[in-house]
Amino acid sequence: MSRAQVYFTAGPAELYPKFEEYLQEFVDLQIGSISHRSGQFKKIYQHTDEQLRILMNIPEENAIMFTGSASEIWEKLVLSTVEHESFHLVNGSFSAKFYQYAQMLQKHATNFEKPLGQGFSYGEIAVPEFAELICTTQNETSTGLQMREADIHKLKRSNNDKLIAVDMVSSAPIPNLDFTVVDTAFFSVQKSFGMPAGLGVWIANERCLEKAKQLKSNGINIGAHHDLPTLWKFAKEFQNPATPNVMGIFILGKIAEDMNKIGIEKIRKETDEKAKKLYKYFENKAGYSLSVNESELRSRTVAVINTEKPSSEIINYLKGKNMVIGSGYGPGKDSQIRISNFIANSAEQIDNLLKEVEKF
Amino acid sequence: MSRAQVYFTAGPAELYPKFEEYLQEFVDLQIGSISHRSGQFKKIYQHTDEQLRILMNIPEENAIMFTGSASEIWEKLVLSTVEHESFHLVNGSFSAKFYQYAQMLQKHATNFEKPLGQGFSYGEIAVPEFAELICTTQNETSTGLQMREADIHKLKRSNNDKLIAVDMVSSAPIPNLDFTVVDTAFFSVQKSFGMPAGLGVWIANERCLEKAKQLKSNGINIGAHHDLPTLWKFAKEFQNPATPNVMGIFILGKIAEDMNKIGIEKIRKETDEKAKKLYKYFENKAGYSLSVNESELRSRTVAVINTEKPSSEIINYLKGKNMVIGSGYGPGKDSQIRISNFIANSAEQIDNLLKEVEKF
Repeated sequence: MSRAQVYFTAGPAELYPKFEEYLQEFVDLQIGSISHRSGQFKKIYQHTDEQLRILMNIPEENAIMFTGSASEIWEKLVLSTVEHESFHLVNGSFSAKFYQYAQMLQKHATNFEKPLGQGFSYGEIAVPEFAELICTTQNETSTGLQMREADIHKLKRSNNDKLIAVDMVSSAPIPNLDFTVVDTAFFSVQKSFGMPAGLGVWIANERCLEKAKQLKSNGINIGAHHDLPTLWKFAKEFQNPATPNVMGIFILGKIAEDMNKIGIEKIRKETDEKAKKLYKYFENKAGYSLSVNESELRSRTVAVINTEKPSSEIINYLKGKNMVIGSGYGPGKDSQIRISNFIANSAEQIDNLLKEVEKF
Repeated sequence: MSRAQVYFTAGPAELYPKFEEYLQEFVDLQIGSISHRSGQFKKIYQHTDEQLRILMNIPEENAIMFTGSASEIWEKLVLSTVEHESFHLVNGSFSAKFYQYAQMLQKHATNFEKPLGQGFSYGEIAVPEFAELICTTQNETSTGLQMREADIHKLKRSNNDKLIAVDMVSSAPIPNLDFTVVDTAFFSVQKSFGMPAGLGVWIANERCLEKAKQLKSNGINIGAHHDLPTLWKFAKEFQNPATPNVMGIFILGKIAEDMNKIGIEKIRKETDEKAKKLYKYFENKAGYSLSVNESELRSRTVAVINTEKPSSEIINYLKGKNMVIGSGYGPGKDSQIRISNFIANSAEQIDNLLKEVEKF
């Protein structure tokens, strides 16, 4: 059955073109019934692990672990790596939530917050002396802002005594992060990987693990479910401590393998070209303006556009053409639209979308 | 495609007969792409909520909430309802893990532990005076033990000042729990509901919510992700605070609806009959004996059988006949087999299994 609607939403999003093929394989092989302690499952985990390492250039040292969502990782990461103090770069609703999680976990959380639509550059960031973890959001889905990889790397290099975390929930595997520099990063699969929601992926290095072990041995409560040392131990044997989302892990491995066949450099180039086309169109289109002024800080995967008229008008028009775009998030709900530029959104789909906007 | 293997494993397990039909509906309706804040999603959540209430007789007052797994609920439940002390009935590996979670969360956790193969009756349980939460495991998947519903209800009634939690991970919806008596219960979907893993279901009443709010206002750390007050608030609007496993919620609603059409009383009766047949067969079969002596404490959904010969022999023989049964868990690995009697395991499948065992 062909898909009736095309989704340009920020996640859940358009599914990966081969998703149905892999789902059928999952059904045919009866993977929904296999034990998560079986050799068959370990091979599935190992395959996904290997394909993600190739795709995102993740060193052998790091562990790749699975949770129920990326939001869960916000909690587990703070619990496992922060004794007293975390520092958060906040420029939208999701980075604000990451910050709020640290506060709810009763850490001394501080932030550097920007007004709506403004992003971060390395030079302006002053990290508090006693912060143990620097929390960055590489792609802020709510405001369409990105933080450049080079800035993240510089931030870590100049704060080498601290851990740095990269929320790449809605951009992975597009950012070219250097995992020999950043300590931990995480994402969910219902964004750029084009899968149904229900799986978070957590990448961490041994410094994170050592910190978690140190906290634990000092009597700090690092949680009971999916704490880093337990997740790590099982991940190194291609298992999860609890029964994970086996279907998600299987399909993620298949999609990562397919992306590796295409080549990540080609995928990144195509993503950049589609993003440029999207931004250029709305920059020059009467009735619209780009939410983010600095072109280098515009998200490559989620474009946020200001609308002069109520955003619902163009959203509803496109809906009538079977194209689903998002409204702005939170304060931008009625005056912005959000358009995903995920890997599953083909150049042809983007072209068709812009043609329809032109007709509106 | 017909399924090559029949699974009699304790979960992940044989899939519900109509699983593929519902999965196809999920694909055709493009539910993998819809927003978890949309009206379309809220209707899906509401449908699942309503069907579970009918199936398990859950009062309007209670909230039905979704997590990534039932193990996650162990943690969230202890965090949200225990300030100082929890009490655990332990008679196998999973009830032991629930107890261990409370310890890891730095609660004063006490337990009443039974030797392998022995279960609990109401009369013998002395609940510590200051325990705030009594943790019962209605169905201990590792040892094939159940706790009778009547005993759980009596335990609550005689400890009305405390909260009582029921782990029904591998038995729901078979136990006929009185949700006007028990305070909270939870399960996962890869057992009796015959679904792929990746979704936990948490049922709780207002007393649990009040306790969580009280702890929070007293400055107790109840966690940041999936804490009860936040989950509750969103559940009452048929949403989840983070992006949940939408596919799981959709299919669970479909399966619960199908079970309601059959009727829960009929399903419970069939489950009892199949269990009786299984136990009767192995009780009388040379080379085998039942692990649980007291017939009333034998699990209705996971039968644990002692084998005179190494358990791998019968397991491998059946594997050759495309029937997958489980080994014993932990200490019973080599000397026990475990056979699921879930709703997806039809009477015909059980008959065929016993015929093959007879030939061995």
